[in-house]
Amino acid sequence: MVRRTSSSYGQDKVAIARRLRKMEGQVRGIAQMIEDDRYCLDVVQQIDALSAAAREVSLIVLEDHLRGCVTDAIKDNDGDAAIKEMVTVLGKALRQ
Amino acid sequence: MVRRTSSSYGQDKVAIARRLRKMEGQVRGIAQMIEDDRYCLDVVQQIDALSAAAREVSLIVLEDHLRGCVTDAIKDNDGDAAIKEMVTVLGKALRQ
Amino acid sequence: MVRRTSSSYGQDKVAIARRLRKMEGQVRGIAQMIEDDRYCLDVVQQIDALSAAAREVSLIVLEDHLRGCVTDAIKDNDGDAAIKEMVTVLGKALRQ
Amino acid sequence: MVRRTSSSYGQDKVAIARRLRKMEGQVRGIAQMIEDDRYCLDVVQQIDALSAAAREVSLIVLEDHLRGCVTDAIKDNDGDAAIKEMVTVLGKALRQ
Repeated sequence: MVRRTSSSYGQDKVAIARRLRKMEGQVRGIAQMIEDDRYCLDVVQQIDALSAAAREVSLIVLEDHLRGCVTDAIKDNDGDAAIKEMVTVLGKALRQ
Repeated sequence: MVRRTSSSYGQDKVAIARRLRKMEGQVRGIAQMIEDDRYCLDVVQQIDALSAAAREVSLIVLEDHLRGCVTDAIKDNDGDAAIKEMVTVLGKALRQ
Repeated sequence: MVRRTSSSYGQDKVAIARRLRKMEGQVRGIAQMIEDDRYCLDVVQQIDALSAAAREVSLIVLEDHLRGCVTDAIKDNDGDAAIKEMVTVLGKALRQ
Repeated sequence: MVRRTSSSYGQDKVAIARRLRKMEGQVRGIAQMIEDDRYCLDVVQQIDALSAAAREVSLIVLEDHLRGCVTDAIKDNDGDAAIKEMVTVLGKALRQ
């Protein structure tokens, strides 16, 4: 059983929050582009930029997860379930 | 030369705006998860959901672009540049 | 109904065939890396390179499809089904 | 410094080799489709299937890497570089 007691991104919390605020602004900017009838492909490129920003946040969270939860589980000789779970989530992320 | 006079998503404008508002809510929800120290992999999965939503919007905009700008260009025997431009943008989108 | 009478990649056929032969070599190279117990992450990076090569071929075929089948359908005032079909395929490709 | 002394996919070696042989057949099948002037979008879908197969192999190798190299490094209190390196590779894989 994988323990879900706590998160591991403690020290990156401020940086992640900042990135998410920027992403919120990007979504609003795209909505404004639609409202202003801006050129379709410019909209697509802004959505790409948003997806890239989302991927960056995922990577930070995955790295924190490896350094925290997965590392702790491995040190407790309990890495199996943690690794299996992470790979399942990775498989979904690689499909995005 | 590709004409960028106007957008083609006129009739999907309301639906796209609704999706973008939902995505804005998703970003805020992820920020709240970070604030609340929620489990890392649950955060990653919510980011995946956001990326999937972003991809859906891209697809609607790309379809509108094909039905509008690209179709008009082709009917004016001027499809070459429009197609080349769209494929360039697709190449970047496929990398996200 | 979308006509599937013929392909549109005629002039790119040689280039696509060359790329596919290179990709076949990449797959065999990866198999050799596994056989030789090469470092895991080097294998992952070679698989990334293969995926990038596959994406390039997809893009060429999609461009040919737009220039051929889709353009013909639009000129025959029959673009709707062709565009709908292409967007469905794009949706799947964007998920890879 | 990350040790690259050996691979970790030992027990999955046969399964990975089998998957790669299947992928080689897929690449040859796509080449034959081009040779036979098969419908463009059917080719794109076969390329998607190849990319999905490539992603599956990546995931197996990444899981083996976590269970082997990364786990060993963490147990030796030397997980930092191994995790950093894995995340860098993941970042590239997520872009494919």
